[in-house]
Amino acid sequence: MGELKLLRAFRKGAPKHPWLRVGPGSDCAVLEWKPGRDLVYKIDQVVEGTHFVLSGREAATPREIGWKAMAKACSDIAAAGAWPVAATVAVNLRKGTPERVAMELYRGITACCRKYRFALAGGDFATSPQGMSVVVSLVGECPKGKAWTRSGAKPGDYLFVTGPLGGSRAKKHLTFQPRLEAAREIRKRLGNGVHACIDITDGLSRDLHHLCAESRVGAVLFETLLPYSAAARRIARSGRSALDQALSDGEDFELLLAVAPSALAALRKRERLRLPIHVIGRVSRAGRGVIIQRASGGYQRLADIGYEHRT
Amino acid sequence: MGELKLLRAFRKGAPKHPWLRVGPGSDCAVLEWKPGRDLVYKIDQVVEGTHFVLSGREAATPREIGWKAMAKACSDIAAAGAWPVAATVAVNLRKGTPERVAMELYRGITACCRKYRFALAGGDFATSPQGMSVVVSLVGECPKGKAWTRSGAKPGDYLFVTGPLGGSRAKKHLTFQPRLEAAREIRKRLGNGVHACIDITDGLSRDLHHLCAESRVGAVLFETLLPYSAAARRIARSGRSALDQALSDGEDFELLLAVAPSALAALRKRERLRLPIHVIGRVSRAGRGVIIQRASGGYQRLADIGYEHRT
Repeated sequence: MGELKLLRAFRKGAPKHPWLRVGPGSDCAVLEWKPGRDLVYKIDQVVEGTHFVLSGREAATPREIGWKAMAKACSDIAAAGAWPVAATVAVNLRKGTPERVAMELYRGITACCRKYRFALAGGDFATSPQGMSVVVSLVGECPKGKAWTRSGAKPGDYLFVTGPLGGSRAKKHLTFQPRLEAAREIRKRLGNGVHACIDITDGLSRDLHHLCAESRVGAVLFETLLPYSAAARRIARSGRSALDQALSDGEDFELLLAVAPSALAALRKRERLRLPIHVIGRVSRAGRGVIIQRASGGYQRLADIGYEHRT
Repeated sequence: MGELKLLRAFRKGAPKHPWLRVGPGSDCAVLEWKPGRDLVYKIDQVVEGTHFVLSGREAATPREIGWKAMAKACSDIAAAGAWPVAATVAVNLRKGTPERVAMELYRGITACCRKYRFALAGGDFATSPQGMSVVVSLVGECPKGKAWTRSGAKPGDYLFVTGPLGGSRAKKHLTFQPRLEAAREIRKRLGNGVHACIDITDGLSRDLHHLCAESRVGAVLFETLLPYSAAARRIARSGRSALDQALSDGEDFELLLAVAPSALAALRKRERLRLPIHVIGRVSRAGRGVIIQRASGGYQRLADIGYEHRT
């Protein structure tokens, strides 16, 4: 498909505007907004057959699809340390889709807007011979010049995730809570101590590689510190290890953050914060690569592989 | 499909936010932006089989599809009397689509950004078993509190269109220029004289009904004043009248404006403006309905029918 060539063209040659602070390549674009505030801007999509299926054992309900579409875009806003203000949504339904399905989809979409108190500002509806797709665009806000990106991690930083990893396919990928509240709390407590952030959509390994490439650093993960989800542990009993799932499963929608060591003091209070924060590694110099210290003590290079969507 | 029920729910019950000035129901949503400026916000989509086809006599090239997707969203920004600042785009390609197609699509998208000098700020790319779709979200700007909507037309206003109508299917629907420059010039010359605006996507008849319903007014069109495109005249020679095409063909992407009579003086200078402005009717009181004065002199009620996309 040449996605890489396309992405390269997109990142190097995309048209600019003087009000654009951050363009293609991070979780969100950033534009100037009101005095003291920046606008973060994101588009994201869920497509039948790739991000959900409508029949079989893993079938999603229309309400879950609506929720997932909106929550997935919110996850990117959270990764920028921002908060959503308004959404627009483009829904494409297969011709002949029952009214009930459209209404349930709508309820899933608006449930997410209501939970995080942002507007559904506009929409476009189409029917076509194609399968279902839901595209969400979000406008959010954060303090001026303070949007988190993938590119600020520094050697010595601690690496954190906001929750247990792996096994998302079991159900979580449809029902997860985007980490908006955690991101807000982390910003409040750590301030400029957050150097970089990404949301884990392609598996920890690939997304950590993304963050390291953008920041031009290396990293080391500690196997003994990785938090596994209950689903990952359950699946591990019948074969694939929880580590493998945590590294390469997709759609965990937890945040991965690189945080200054000096922010440790604030983090030591994390019991009181009730933040779901798990230290999993450190940032190193670029030449060190991305590696994992196994429970056995040995080091191993981490492959830049991750979750492949089903198509 | 219950689109109406969905749209009703969407317009009445959509979640709100204090920064949202205009929500669902107009061409664009409006949010607060910088001091003195508002942010207009829009999502729009083109879907294979509905807005374009990839094979046969009417086949669109990938570049045309990219241009159309972006220009169609720009047309809504123009209808708000605004100017685009940044776009994000979600592209879904059928698995196995050649790289060349993706790159041509991208070139069509960016050609529109470059022509009107706004940023391509972000994107999302997916492949799926589905056909092609391109969703564009746009953020634009206009003077604070001055975004044009569909709801301000007043009895006595003149009705204008920005160009000849009908026959768009012949080619124009893929290659049209969104009326951004005309909108900017009209705003500059007429100021608050513009009371309402809509872009003609569903045919003049249906879009005039939309504008009248939102403004709670009636309207009268004059058949003798309607400007027909060359394509419409050509098609008329082999059957369907140019009037019928102008009233019910879709995707003309001209603007329909309701303008205060006092703005007439400025409009009289239109030769000098080089604005493609055509007076086509007047706004009347709501009870009068939406009618057309035929060339024969008689009046006829205008049906609220318009362009049906091919599915």
